[in-house]
Amino acid sequence: MSSYILVTNDDGVDAPGIKALHDAVRHLGRAVIVAPERDKSAVSHALTMNRPLHVRELREDVYTLDGTPTDCVTLGMNKILPRMPDLLVSGINPGPNLGDDISYSGTVSAAIEGTMYGIPSLAFSLAGEPPFDFETAAGVAWKLASMALQFGLPANTLLNINIPQLPPGDIRGIRFTRQGRRIYKNAIQETYDPRGRKHYWIGGGTVQWTGGEDTDEQALREGYISVTPIQLDLTNHEGRDYLREHWKM
Amino acid sequence: MSSYILVTNDDGVDAPGIKALHDAVRHLGRAVIVAPERDKSAVSHALTMNRPLHVRELREDVYTLDGTPTDCVTLGMNKILPRMPDLLVSGINPGPNLGDDISYSGTVSAAIEGTMYGIPSLAFSLAGEPPFDFETAAGVAWKLASMALQFGLPANTLLNINIPQLPPGDIRGIRFTRQGRRIYKNAIQETYDPRGRKHYWIGGGTVQWTGGEDTDEQALREGYISVTPIQLDLTNHEGRDYLREHWKM
Repeated sequence: MSSYILVTNDDGVDAPGIKALHDAVRHLGRAVIVAPERDKSAVSHALTMNRPLHVRELREDVYTLDGTPTDCVTLGMNKILPRMPDLLVSGINPGPNLGDDISYSGTVSAAIEGTMYGIPSLAFSLAGEPPFDFETAAGVAWKLASMALQFGLPANTLLNINIPQLPPGDIRGIRFTRQGRRIYKNAIQETYDPRGRKHYWIGGGTVQWTGGEDTDEQALREGYISVTPIQLDLTNHEGRDYLREHWKM
Repeated sequence: MSSYILVTNDDGVDAPGIKALHDAVRHLGRAVIVAPERDKSAVSHALTMNRPLHVRELREDVYTLDGTPTDCVTLGMNKILPRMPDLLVSGINPGPNLGDDISYSGTVSAAIEGTMYGIPSLAFSLAGEPPFDFETAAGVAWKLASMALQFGLPANTLLNINIPQLPPGDIRGIRFTRQGRRIYKNAIQETYDPRGRKHYWIGGGTVQWTGGEDTDEQALREGYISVTPIQLDLTNHEGRDYLREHWKM
């Protein structure tokens, strides 16, 4: 029981996914939940800086605050845990976090924040449709969290993990994937309020994926667990050469 | 006047920075503002999906909506402009967006969203302290926007541009930089509400940078405009090899 594990999510402290994750990783060390009070899906890497945040201890090793997943990680690491954790796990998100869409994800952003602090961080998502059953995914989370503690991660890199919602026997294994590309199409619905004013509702539409054989999306489609190493450095290093060559000042 | 340029920000449609940017790029084509009604700083790549969004036309070529910068880009491109724009510009943010912190930035996230749609996208920030004077930065924005229209950008890549708040004659030139690394330290203040309950306020503290000579932060410190190409693909490709080699399943 020498490891400390910070457990967070973006769906709120009462979400079934975080309970399943907490139950899974508490066998690996002292697992402390610090999670938002309410659903903070799609808040991405938002940080609350315009107001103070209040932390409530709900029960032993379960804390909540009125902020975002990133707030939870920052306060969890710096103020709530007695020391920096050995591992951060985020999720389990009900629904996939794949390709370009991870940029919107609170689940993944929490792991980005952990990585900025130098803590090995894993984001878990259950790739399927409601009703969600987290049992198999929780078993996978336990396994991968123990691997991360044992073998470590590449520097400045988190893992974005998507687990297909399949019976354990139907999961074909683990693939180390790269981020796929999502082609956006008609993801906005038009609607009208009772006074006849037009509103737009983002979401829906069809989704198309590209990127080839070894993407996250492809792995899931074929029944594999997708593990994508995601790096903090967003620089396109070859892009710098392109600009130096092509931009005539 | 054949180019369409989408202009957005995270500080709100009335911010002086977006007015300066709009005035600068309207010489390059039809420049249309679609920006949040209110300050949406540090919302990162948040997308509003749990409620419909209403768009208001404030005056010719100036639209606002009750959402995030990412909402503005999505709706601007798909519903407000008559066609996809040739260029997206975001900003001018009052204050720098450097290193790891760009992950929190609404200014940069708007440019990420544009890049996902395949539109050349530039994020502009004025690196300085209040009182902000956007005049010099607006001139730089005009120059770099015209370069982007003329010479293009690397594929799936946006530019994160920080301009030092200096008199034009004191700016030493442009550097194509990489993203620096920020070391986090004590960026949380403790405070108490009138009832004596402890609260945490994120922000403040000291900042330390690492990453060496060619980073964004270093360029600004030496009086250069920093132009960092930022890619959509977050995969750590070498990290996949590390995992395949070191993780014994």
